[in-house]
Amino acid sequence: MTEALQKELLARFRDSIDNLDAALINIVAERFRITKQVGEFKAEHNLPPADPDREKQQVERLRKLAADANLDPDFAEKLLSFIIEEVIRHHEQARK
Amino acid sequence: MTEALQKELLARFRDSIDNLDAALINIVAERFRITKQVGEFKAEHNLPPADPDREKQQVERLRKLAADANLDPDFAEKLLSFIIEEVIRHHEQARK
Repeated sequence: MTEALQKELLARFRDSIDNLDAALINIVAERFRITKQVGEFKAEHNLPPADPDREKQQVERLRKLAADANLDPDFAEKLLSFIIEEVIRHHEQARK
Repeated sequence: MTEALQKELLARFRDSIDNLDAALINIVAERFRITKQVGEFKAEHNLPPADPDREKQQVERLRKLAADANLDPDFAEKLLSFIIEEVIRHHEQARK
């Protein structure tokens, strides 16, 4: 395979990755828009910022969705934890 | 506001979050499907698994997309780093 063809094939893969990353950012942005509203709602009604039962359900559901999509469930869980930690940090700031 | 109404409003927010999480998982799964192909392609043609220039461009682009979507660019960058680290780990495994 020529180097030019290698570069073209790599560029095609990268265009797909760039499109998926843009989708990812917009979904995460929308998720934060909603969790921000949840945070304000919880602060307003004196509800606790974290909800361990809900989080446990989310993790179980996400692991199943990941397995169905052939994504490592452990990685999916770590990714969700990473996002939820940021959400809780925002909720705690909203209560101050 | 009654407790029943509070619960209903919270349930509505959570349905949106669940839908977004399912979309997120599927996008990340598709991203891994492609980066797995990239990893195999790079291993096959003896190309280096990491590409610092490409990663720098991705980070700059993502930070701009995040800012446009009103998402904290620092968080978007951390999230992408988290995903890319996992991808590099996969690529290194593929070369073994």
